[in-house]
Amino acid sequence: MTSFNEVLDASITGKDSALCVGLDPRIDRMAPSIQAGDRPVFEFCRRMVDATAAYAACFKPQIAYFAAEGAEQDLVDTIDYVHTEYPGTPVILDAKRGDVGETAQQYARELFERFDADAATISPYLGWDAIDPYLAFEGKGLFVLCHTSNPESGWLQEYPEEAPVFRRVAQAVAARRDPRLMMVVGATFPEQLGIVRRDAESTTFLVPGVGAQGGEVDAVFLHGANAAGGGLIVNASRSINYASSDEDFEEAATTAARDLRDSLRRARDFALRKN
Amino acid sequence: MTSFNEVLDASITGKDSALCVGLDPRIDRMAPSIQAGDRPVFEFCRRMVDATAAYAACFKPQIAYFAAEGAEQDLVDTIDYVHTEYPGTPVILDAKRGDVGETAQQYARELFERFDADAATISPYLGWDAIDPYLAFEGKGLFVLCHTSNPESGWLQEYPEEAPVFRRVAQAVAARRDPRLMMVVGATFPEQLGIVRRDAESTTFLVPGVGAQGGEVDAVFLHGANAAGGGLIVNASRSINYASSDEDFEEAATTAARDLRDSLRRARDFALRKN
Repeated sequence: MTSFNEVLDASITGKDSALCVGLDPRIDRMAPSIQAGDRPVFEFCRRMVDATAAYAACFKPQIAYFAAEGAEQDLVDTIDYVHTEYPGTPVILDAKRGDVGETAQQYARELFERFDADAATISPYLGWDAIDPYLAFEGKGLFVLCHTSNPESGWLQEYPEEAPVFRRVAQAVAARRDPRLMMVVGATFPEQLGIVRRDAESTTFLVPGVGAQGGEVDAVFLHGANAAGGGLIVNASRSINYASSDEDFEEAATTAARDLRDSLRRARDFALRKN
Repeated sequence: MTSFNEVLDASITGKDSALCVGLDPRIDRMAPSIQAGDRPVFEFCRRMVDATAAYAACFKPQIAYFAAEGAEQDLVDTIDYVHTEYPGTPVILDAKRGDVGETAQQYARELFERFDADAATISPYLGWDAIDPYLAFEGKGLFVLCHTSNPESGWLQEYPEEAPVFRRVAQAVAARRDPRLMMVVGATFPEQLGIVRRDAESTTFLVPGVGAQGGEVDAVFLHGANAAGGGLIVNASRSINYASSDEDFEEAATTAARDLRDSLRRARDFALRKN
C-alpha cells in the first residue's frame, strides 16, 4: 500500500504547490443558492474542491463544522468525492482527537474507516498512549499538535520557558523517525516554527494560521522550510472558503487559492536564496 | 436556569452516590439478543441506564463509541432518554475536544445543542482559547483534562518534574473560581490526585480509572476528597457495561453499580475518619 507521505509528496511536487485547502462549511456564510439547496454542506464542499483542486496539494476538512450540523454523511461524501475525482490529492481530517486505548481505537475507526481520511490531526496531551493506536492503520498519516496558531497557545505549549512543552513534543516526534508522524506548527509564531524545524529537520509540518489568522508566508518558509525549501503544507480555510459569500464564490475561491499557491512558491524561492 | 453544578450536587446528595456510570457501547461485547436487534447501540444504552440509574449520580457516554458506528442518533436518543426518564441525573459527554475560536464554537454546538449534553470533557493543550468558548453556553459544565488515568499520561502532564503541566492546569482552573470549570483527574495516580486536591480545594473532579483500569477507591477518597469527603465523581464504564456480556447483563450491571456505589460510600467514610 502506498503511504500517506508518498502520496502527499507526489502531490506537492506534481502541482508544485505547498497549499492545503481547508474545508470549514458554515451554512450562514455560503452563497444564497447553496444555502437554499437540499444538501448545502456537501454541495459547498464539492464546489470548493472543484474550484481549488488544481492548486491544492491536499484538502483539510474540519470535522467540527460537519458535526455541529449533523452532516456526517456530507463529510463521508466529500472525502469520497476527492478520492474519486482527484485521486492523488490526499485528505487530512482535522479532528484533534485525544484519547487512549480502546477509545482511541474507536476514534481511529471513526476517522480512518468511517470517513476514510488519509491522515488526521491528534492532540498529545495524553501522551503516546493517545498517538500510537492510530499507527495500526496502514497507509495513514498523523499530524500531532505541536505549537498551534491561536494567540494563547503558549500558555501550555511554551511552558516552561527554558524547555517548553512544544519542543518536548517536537523532539519526541523527530526521535521516532517515522514518516507517518508529522506535526501541526502554526504560522503565527515564526520563531517557534524555526525552533521546531531545528528540532525536527526532516518532519513534515502542517501550518495553519495564514490568511484569516494573519500569519506571513515569507516568515513561514524562512523559519519553517527544510534545507530543500520543503517539508511544509500551508493551510488556508476561511480566506478561500469565504473569499466571497455571494454567487461568485467559486471564482473567488479559485483566485484566492491560486494567489496563495503563488505566494507560497515565491516564499519558498526567497527562503532558498536567503537560507 | 439551574447550573450543572447544582444539578450534579443535588444528584450526589439525593442518591448518596459518587458514582458516574460510563456508557461505552461496543457492539461485539453486547448480549446476543441486543446485538441481533435493530438499534443495538441505543437499546444497550437505554437498558444500561435503567439498570444503574438508582446508583448513578450521573452518566458519561464516550462519544468515540457512537461515532465509530455512525450512531449519532443513538447518542441523541440516549441523552434524551436520561433527561426524560431520570430528570436530575446529568449527562457528561466525554469528547475531549480541543480546538479554538470558531471551531470551538462548532464543537460546543455539537456537544451542547445537537447532543444536549449537560457537561463535556475538554483538552487544555491549546490553552484557554480552547476552553472559554464553551462557557458561553448557559447552564453547562466543563471538565478540563488535568491528570489522566493512562499509564503514559505523565510524559506530558508530569513535565517538567519540579512544576508539572498538570499542576499548571489545576492551579489555573482553581484560580478562575468558576464552579462550571471542573477537572478530570485519574484514579490510577493517587499521589498526583492529592496534589491536585491541594491545588484546587473546592473544584469537582471527575475520576476515571477505577474498575477495568485498576484504580483503588480508598486511595481516591483519601487523596482526592475535599474536607467534607466530597468533590469527586468516580467513573466506571467497562466494569459495569460488560459485567456480563450474556443475557443477564442488566442484573450484572445493577450489581456492579450498587457494589461500586457502596465501595465509594465506605471509602468516603474511611477518608473522613482518617483525614
